Amino acid sequence: MEIRDLGEQGLLAMVKRFCPLEVVGDDAAVLSPVADQSLVVTTDMLVEGCHFSDRTTPAIAVGWRSVSANLSDLAAMGASPLGITVALGLRGETPINWVEQLYEGMAECLDQFQTPIIGGDICRSPINTISITAIGTVAPQRIIKRSTAQPEWAIMVSGAHGHSRAGLELLLNENLGASLSETEKRSLQHHHQYPQPRLDILPSLQKLWDSDPHLIIAGMDSSDGLADAIVQISQASGVGARIEAQKLPHSNSLFQLAPAETVLDWVLYGGEDFELVLCLPCDRAQQLIKHIPGSAIIGVTTTETETILLTGTHSNSEIILTQKQGFQHF
Amino acid sequence: MEIRDLGEQGLLAMVKRFCPLEVVGDDAAVLSPVADQSLVVTTDMLVEGCHFSDRTTPAIAVGWRSVSANLSDLAAMGASPLGITVALGLRGETPINWVEQLYEGMAECLDQFQTPIIGGDICRSPINTISITAIGTVAPQRIIKRSTAQPEWAIMVSGAHGHSRAGLELLLNENLGASLSETEKRSLQHHHQYPQPRLDILPSLQKLWDSDPHLIIAGMDSSDGLADAIVQISQASGVGARIEAQKLPHSNSLFQLAPAETVLDWVLYGGEDFELVLCLPCDRAQQLIKHIPGSAIIGVTTTETETILLTGTHSNSEIILTQKQGFQHF
Repeated sequence: MEIRDLGEQGLLAMVKRFCPLEVVGDDAAVLSPVADQSLVVTTDMLVEGCHFSDRTTPAIAVGWRSVSANLSDLAAMGASPLGITVALGLRGETPINWVEQLYEGMAECLDQFQTPIIGGDICRSPINTISITAIGTVAPQRIIKRSTAQPEWAIMVSGAHGHSRAGLELLLNENLGASLSETEKRSLQHHHQYPQPRLDILPSLQKLWDSDPHLIIAGMDSSDGLADAIVQISQASGVGARIEAQKLPHSNSLFQLAPAETVLDWVLYGGEDFELVLCLPCDRAQQLIKHIPGSAIIGVTTTETETILLTGTHSNSEIILTQKQGFQHF
Repeated sequence: MEIRDLGEQGLLAMVKRFCPLEVVGDDAAVLSPVADQSLVVTTDMLVEGCHFSDRTTPAIAVGWRSVSANLSDLAAMGASPLGITVALGLRGETPINWVEQLYEGMAECLDQFQTPIIGGDICRSPINTISITAIGTVAPQRIIKRSTAQPEWAIMVSGAHGHSRAGLELLLNENLGASLSETEKRSLQHHHQYPQPRLDILPSLQKLWDSDPHLIIAGMDSSDGLADAIVQISQASGVGARIEAQKLPHSNSLFQLAPAETVLDWVLYGGEDFELVLCLPCDRAQQLIKHIPGSAIIGVTTTETETILLTGTHSNSEIILTQKQGFQHF
């Protein structure tokens, strides 16, 4: 059955199953934020054929990823989610099952963080389009910004990069990865289809702040690529950065899919890993990585203006990183 | 010049001109809401060819209308706007000028209420698509809901209905309205292209509440039609309604465009007038309409279950109103 057979009321009735009862029925949803918290708001639009396709992304993964991208933006600011709105443009011939699966995926990702869908809109469109706005809260003195890094701070990542891109390659090319086990393949594909927003890190950050209320943490997420994140933080903060390639965490299975140079390209420019890239004083960073499995300090900020990647076994080759290979929408 | 020539960075630079400086640059925007206020969140998606077309709506009007629809949803809950996010899907061959005009229209509508664009996303799409989320605040005890009307309350409208639909007819058919003055024609077309969200009414409501803190006001906006709004409020509140056709405010110029029966249809089902339909105790409604030029009490809620329209010079004919002619998206 297609959604044009269901009609607007039928479609809304289906979608309402995924929303808490108390928010449905008025022109807008009502939320009660915690006192003395700042609101953080982020929005994303995903278009069929551009951001997702049936070939690599089943509807349930489209739903998961679209929510994950927005929650990752909240995590990148240090904010906890309060709720999301979902605006959907749907082709009339879209199977009802696709829409149900889309909401299942969104709900699964949201349920991890007890976050409700608080509102939405559905309309007909020549192309399936999803627009999500996420709202979160954060204590004003604990907002993570791109622009507040200082020289000689540690640059850390919350986890490995390149996995999402490797997973995409595996999904696009069935012959790839013959030497990988099924579990390794699945794990990389899972990274691409069901990336985790790193909201799980926030409690560790809160502990740091509880012991040092004046601590400043700069950062952003790596959704547009690790290199892009480092360059953006450096530029916004007016600092340079030196990153050591051999400290970048990544799974060895990547080297069974592509030559080392390609793997480094995936790690730096692959994007969509949704990890956090944070800058903070070195001693605090050392404390923090102990509480976040898979995280690593990958370099330091400098008083220079360039973002430099040190490669080679003795970190004796320098490459200047730029944003230019980052994700461009037009 | 088309947006594909401008590239993502160029496009973002252009769009940022319309956003306050302090909200641009991080993964998400930060807002500081007033303490003890509830948040109200609403979202809408508009798709080219479905919700707007170049024939009846220049880009500046598309921008204005898309903002107006969202601000109207806030007004309908009694909430004042805090900010909006804008997600845009754009065809590569869209003229840059069209996008600029779109933002001009949004900014003009927003500036009336000192409301900023606090965030957004732009991506490529086979069809121009606009998704707006508006965030507002309201004192928790002053939220206007659909479900809180009581029997024997007055039903009032904040202004005339049918004008937007009449304006659309004039835009679609140049030969129509030969007996109308240019000013009358322009006024109706303006109603269609630049509808006003009725946020201007909120101060009058606050005055009522200041003198009677326990006052409950039920209501919603009439974006999907006046009949739809009355039926929705009645059903959500479990009351009936009796509306007198001769009390419905509308301009006489409508009768020069269409026979009386068609005019009544435009008034009841035309939609997109973005007025408020409010239910409150009769004495309070009498007070309120004195402060809102063009508003009128059009009927009363009842203990019946039906929404009845009384027509004829002596209001002696009864028609049962339903939602069924309301705007359907699929």
